[in-house]
Amino acid sequence: MAQSIEAILAELKRGVENIYSEEDLIAKLKENRPLRIKLGADPTAPDIHLGHTVVINKLRQFQQLGHEVIFLIGDFTGMVGDPSGKNTTRPPLTREDVLRNAETYKQQLFKILDPNKTRVVFNSAWLNELGTEGMIRLTSNYTVARMLERDDFKKRFTNNQPIAIHEFIYPLLQGYDSVALQADVELGGTDQTFNLLVGRELQKSAEQKPQVAITLPLLVGLDGEKKMSKSLGNYIGVTEAPNEMFGKVMSISDELMWDWYNLLSFRPLAEITQLKADVDAGKNPRDVKILLAKEIITRFHSEAEADLAEQHFINRFQKGAIPDEMPEFCFNGEIGLATLLKEAGLVASTSEAIRSAQQGGVKIDGQKIDDVRANAQLGTFVYQVGKRKFARVTVK
Amino acid sequence: MAQSIEAILAELKRGVENIYSEEDLIAKLKENRPLRIKLGADPTAPDIHLGHTVVINKLRQFQQLGHEVIFLIGDFTGMVGDPSGKNTTRPPLTREDVLRNAETYKQQLFKILDPNKTRVVFNSAWLNELGTEGMIRLTSNYTVARMLERDDFKKRFTNNQPIAIHEFIYPLLQGYDSVALQADVELGGTDQTFNLLVGRELQKSAEQKPQVAITLPLLVGLDGEKKMSKSLGNYIGVTEAPNEMFGKVMSISDELMWDWYNLLSFRPLAEITQLKADVDAGKNPRDVKILLAKEIITRFHSEAEADLAEQHFINRFQKGAIPDEMPEFCFNGEIGLATLLKEAGLVASTSEAIRSAQQGGVKIDGQKIDDVRANAQLGTFVYQVGKRKFARVTVK
Repeated sequence: MAQSIEAILAELKRGVENIYSEEDLIAKLKENRPLRIKLGADPTAPDIHLGHTVVINKLRQFQQLGHEVIFLIGDFTGMVGDPSGKNTTRPPLTREDVLRNAETYKQQLFKILDPNKTRVVFNSAWLNELGTEGMIRLTSNYTVARMLERDDFKKRFTNNQPIAIHEFIYPLLQGYDSVALQADVELGGTDQTFNLLVGRELQKSAEQKPQVAITLPLLVGLDGEKKMSKSLGNYIGVTEAPNEMFGKVMSISDELMWDWYNLLSFRPLAEITQLKADVDAGKNPRDVKILLAKEIITRFHSEAEADLAEQHFINRFQKGAIPDEMPEFCFNGEIGLATLLKEAGLVASTSEAIRSAQQGGVKIDGQKIDDVRANAQLGTFVYQVGKRKFARVTVK
Repeated sequence: MAQSIEAILAELKRGVENIYSEEDLIAKLKENRPLRIKLGADPTAPDIHLGHTVVINKLRQFQQLGHEVIFLIGDFTGMVGDPSGKNTTRPPLTREDVLRNAETYKQQLFKILDPNKTRVVFNSAWLNELGTEGMIRLTSNYTVARMLERDDFKKRFTNNQPIAIHEFIYPLLQGYDSVALQADVELGGTDQTFNLLVGRELQKSAEQKPQVAITLPLLVGLDGEKKMSKSLGNYIGVTEAPNEMFGKVMSISDELMWDWYNLLSFRPLAEITQLKADVDAGKNPRDVKILLAKEIITRFHSEAEADLAEQHFINRFQKGAIPDEMPEFCFNGEIGLATLLKEAGLVASTSEAIRSAQQGGVKIDGQKIDDVRANAQLGTFVYQVGKRKFARVTVK
């Protein structure tokens, strides 16, 4: 059954920050042809986290509606690197680096997108061809004053912080990608708004119909305050282990959960509305959070692993009723489990440790341990003896 | 006899506005090798006037000192044209246009420079090769703020007049020419100061010794006030006829004459100092002006033509004592000389005209005319009958 334009539009607008312009989008949808939906990615950092997947999820919606998804890997600028040479953390990538990173990207990407319906392209294909003359023509399309309207440029200019001229060229190259691809729609985070609109302008100059620019909000991270980012540590990587993912999703606030539902869940809007109604009617929000955690783990691992992670979580944190606060210890180097339990004050002696373990009274992260004569594993775990004694111990 | 560095420097500094830096120039001169002296020219307007020759004369000095003169034809940007397409007066040049204009340039140039010691190069040779990546690296060398320090950019930016981004790239391309040529010295008008200094910067970035930038003043035109330019009409083109040149040089003020001596004459400084002393001692400055006019005509035509022009000038304006003010007439279409003289009120009848001519009493522009039965030439001439009757007559 074909959906109405209104219903399609409602799903496409879900979680979206801005559309430039909705009118153009409706007109394009009415053309009844597969639209070319562009998303650009930086090949320097191929490990993505849930924050990155917000736009990819939007791509998926378009893909499921029959449109053509183009995942653009910005290898050209990646291979140029930081031309000032000042940013030593961003050395120029080789062709091999780019291809390897692209593979990593694709593995993660195709957990969300259908590989058979996704075109992966590299912009070096047309940017190398542009050449000196093409660059002059390209840069003649935009004025210095308009480029300085971009928020970050404006701030740096006002604060007398240097802006190298090539930085003015990068948004134009990104816009030119849209010209080369004849993109109908480009997606991006809100921080990409300016660049997406440059694409619209350049397409007009090239006498193409301007692309629709759709911006999505930046996902708020685990802390519930700042946008998810690797450097802040408030992220969930899409390759993280199921148990890690589960625990992290369960740690977010109930309020943030609904935000994540909107941006990360593939459930239709109607289902989410129903879940909210259930919670309002008394359902424990924790159970709704479990649904979200399992959906995400199923996406990036499998349904079976999602079930296991749920079980592990329940064993560890719910059945055992592990307290939030407990003594913490840290040991350097190898240490026997029995000694560790004694040093952490959970048993009076190593022989008590051995006896307790034999009687099923010793748990590590909620899992019973029969034998404490082995060495402790490296890492941080909750050690438990009996029902009441806990210690969080790190072995380095 | 080898000249001392001091004597060489004194001639090289003659007429110069600024040297960036004199210290660098002295160091390079002391290296005792042929320095690469660069001058860039725009291939869109190959007809040069005396104003353009000021820098070429400076090139000649370097050439005569044994240095290597590189005349760079900026064909690359000429072939790009005005990328905005707004400036319809500057259409992109074809390769044929460029080569034809280059030939025109060379013909004029080699009246001043020794063709066997002049390297003529085209910057498309290395700028096309630069490519997209090279352009990014190049533009990463300069900041937006520093580019906005250039006077014209600063004014336009302050007045909210648009500056297209490619305009920021042109000075960098010109600077890159110096890198590609490993120029030791670049010459230019004072309006080129900023661009020449960009070349210095880019050479430093490329780990070359920075070129010495030598700027020369803009030659003041015939009016004694504004810089010589085609659009103001106050110029002497280097291909103008000897008589035109002579008359125009003679028309400049005595004050401007010394300025022109300094910038246009090849006479050594000592000779010019002597001429000034002569005038101070009572010599007629007109005679010194004649020397300058003849030197310039000899340069662009020949010594014989310079002598003829002098003779023509004396016949026309000095011996005949032609007044500044006289009646003016204009005729459309063919007209017999005798009729013209009658209509202009110089004779009472055509038969008087014929008689006067036979007796040697009729002159056109100071030249005696025997026979007035022919038609008058098209153009404006001073017609004279006897000692006292004059009329300026235009036949169209």
